[in-house]
Amino acid sequence: MIREIRRSGALGRGELVRRTALPRSSVFAIVGDLVERGVLVETSRPGDARRGRGRPGALVSLDPAAGLIVGVDVGREATRLVVANAAHQIVAAGVSEEPAAEDAGACAVQIETLIHSVCAVDDIDLDALEAVGIGVYGLPEIHESATRSPRDLTSELSNRLEVPVALGNNTRLAALAEATWGAGRGVDDQVYVRWSVGVGGGCLVGGRLLVGANGAAGEIGHVCLDPNGPRCDCGGHGCLETLVGGPALLEICRQRGLDLRSLDDLVEAVQARIAVASDVVVQAARRLGVVLAGTVALLDPQRVIIGGELGQVGSLVLEAIHEKIDALSMPGLGRTVEVVRADLGMNDGALGAVAHVLRSRQPTTTAG
Amino acid sequence: MIREIRRSGALGRGELVRRTALPRSSVFAIVGDLVERGVLVETSRPGDARRGRGRPGALVSLDPAAGLIVGVDVGREATRLVVANAAHQIVAAGVSEEPAAEDAGACAVQIETLIHSVCAVDDIDLDALEAVGIGVYGLPEIHESATRSPRDLTSELSNRLEVPVALGNNTRLAALAEATWGAGRGVDDQVYVRWSVGVGGGCLVGGRLLVGANGAAGEIGHVCLDPNGPRCDCGGHGCLETLVGGPALLEICRQRGLDLRSLDDLVEAVQARIAVASDVVVQAARRLGVVLAGTVALLDPQRVIIGGELGQVGSLVLEAIHEKIDALSMPGLGRTVEVVRADLGMNDGALGAVAHVLRSRQPTTTAG
Repeated sequence: MIREIRRSGALGRGELVRRTALPRSSVFAIVGDLVERGVLVETSRPGDARRGRGRPGALVSLDPAAGLIVGVDVGREATRLVVANAAHQIVAAGVSEEPAAEDAGACAVQIETLIHSVCAVDDIDLDALEAVGIGVYGLPEIHESATRSPRDLTSELSNRLEVPVALGNNTRLAALAEATWGAGRGVDDQVYVRWSVGVGGGCLVGGRLLVGANGAAGEIGHVCLDPNGPRCDCGGHGCLETLVGGPALLEICRQRGLDLRSLDDLVEAVQARIAVASDVVVQAARRLGVVLAGTVALLDPQRVIIGGELGQVGSLVLEAIHEKIDALSMPGLGRTVEVVRADLGMNDGALGAVAHVLRSRQPTTTAG
Repeated sequence: MIREIRRSGALGRGELVRRTALPRSSVFAIVGDLVERGVLVETSRPGDARRGRGRPGALVSLDPAAGLIVGVDVGREATRLVVANAAHQIVAAGVSEEPAAEDAGACAVQIETLIHSVCAVDDIDLDALEAVGIGVYGLPEIHESATRSPRDLTSELSNRLEVPVALGNNTRLAALAEATWGAGRGVDDQVYVRWSVGVGGGCLVGGRLLVGANGAAGEIGHVCLDPNGPRCDCGGHGCLETLVGGPALLEICRQRGLDLRSLDDLVEAVQARIAVASDVVVQAARRLGVVLAGTVALLDPQRVIIGGELGQVGSLVLEAIHEKIDALSMPGLGRTVEVVRADLGMNDGALGAVAHVLRSRQPTTTAG
């Protein structure tokens, strides 16, 4: 039961009955006992609560006085950080726009400084720090030889803070975050796409993050749409990302007479229903939808989650994607695939780093 | 240790040392003890041995005197059957070309009759029968309402034979068979494609068969290659299967002046290096390669296994697929994806049904 709660952060008693398959009366008795002993506390839904002072409600979670977990997302333009307690409640968050140092040791110092400054603001005692999760862009398992070696960053930070540090790709961690706290909560089989300057993704299969033989699974942006298409940074040709990533969309807009400086501008233009912008994005969403239709044929997910700036466009994009999945992914089966917008915004990678730590500390369980 | 052996069928002592991470001397002592007590027996490699009388060798396996497992593949044109002992050795095999009855009860009788006749030929005592696995075409989890309800077939057969019966899609089971006994042995992340009249597949992720939310994962034949392509039986358009499945290839050959009656004829023509046939198959292999390149981007497998009649063409097909994966699936990563031919031939589905039973009886473990 504790394992289920640790896994999910907070659960209602009814949900616990379902998950443990124990008699209702037993679950209520055990929960009552654990609450009395201070192992569990009654809490409000995670995300609503701040610093453990949620209104008492129908959910129970682990006592938030237990150890803290810090999640860090070392992005290209900013380093984001969240602090979670053992009840999976986010008790603080912060961001540094200083570019992350290329040297692993220097980067570890930056992260340590950010942790201290965020915790100082919120008066959080770092003695309770139990572990740190880090998300990085790129493929840490493969790019071990990069300037800022993921292994060095992990060990430097672990030595400085004297706690275990776990590291992963930040898009995959964002997928894990959506599955744990966001739009994918409670869904075992899901595909997450981050549609932004690049196009990345992460898949959950039977409740587990799909990692792959080289830690490179989920690279939906590098599914080839057109073998004769433009060359991609990955070395391939006609990858989805070259056709629907941010730079490609801005260039198509420019060719059609709409000059925009950034992806945020494009999203704003679509939200204002400027015809050219909407048209460009819907066409792109259809192309993404074709690739997602293939992904659905392969993985048979229950839900597809669209994150990144372009996910925030909402129904226009979701419907175009849904149409393609419905039309092209074995419509005869009559299965329902939900296509929804991601929930978590800019902190998804940092939240995912927390989820990564929480999951890696538990005994592996099949999802359910 | 027993779990590792049950999982793998037969293992050498050195491999057991590696897998259990126990000291070499301990593993040798434990194995010696278990062999003495009759729990383990020394055996030859599974597949080589017949009826438990393999030459004594470096491998140890569970005592074959333990319970039998029957695997059945109810195909469109034939029902195939294998009988395995607890050491994962195949002790008998058989086939019936009588079409499987549409009625679940009648089909169960056919299967029971086939089991009895195969076991009678090889003088196998059915009292030792422990479980039956069945592979069926289609998607049993979704097509519960079909004439021959998978659930009814399972319960009818289970009632008749008085043993547990487990059922699954036969292409997915073939993937499991290759992973357990064939070209995917020891590989945790792999994609299996059955390239035949239809194009199907199955994926192993972290050592587990990918099932999906509706039991429909692995349908690589229904990945859309061309949204404006011909209509597919699945209701979609431009699915890989419509472009490279057996009927499409025979039709292209016909248009190019080569009239062939069957896929076997086509394979023979390619093996004889008849130019038109080779060209048609290589072009098709490239298309399959494009879809597999996308699959590799998503799943990051270590190995891709090509089964079905067209897999038997060998290097011509494997190289064309490999080229596309190398060119289109993030070549910058420098990862190596192996593309190999399937090992197991026509009994792959029935063997997979046995593997399915063996895996479902064990405690779930992470692969390794």
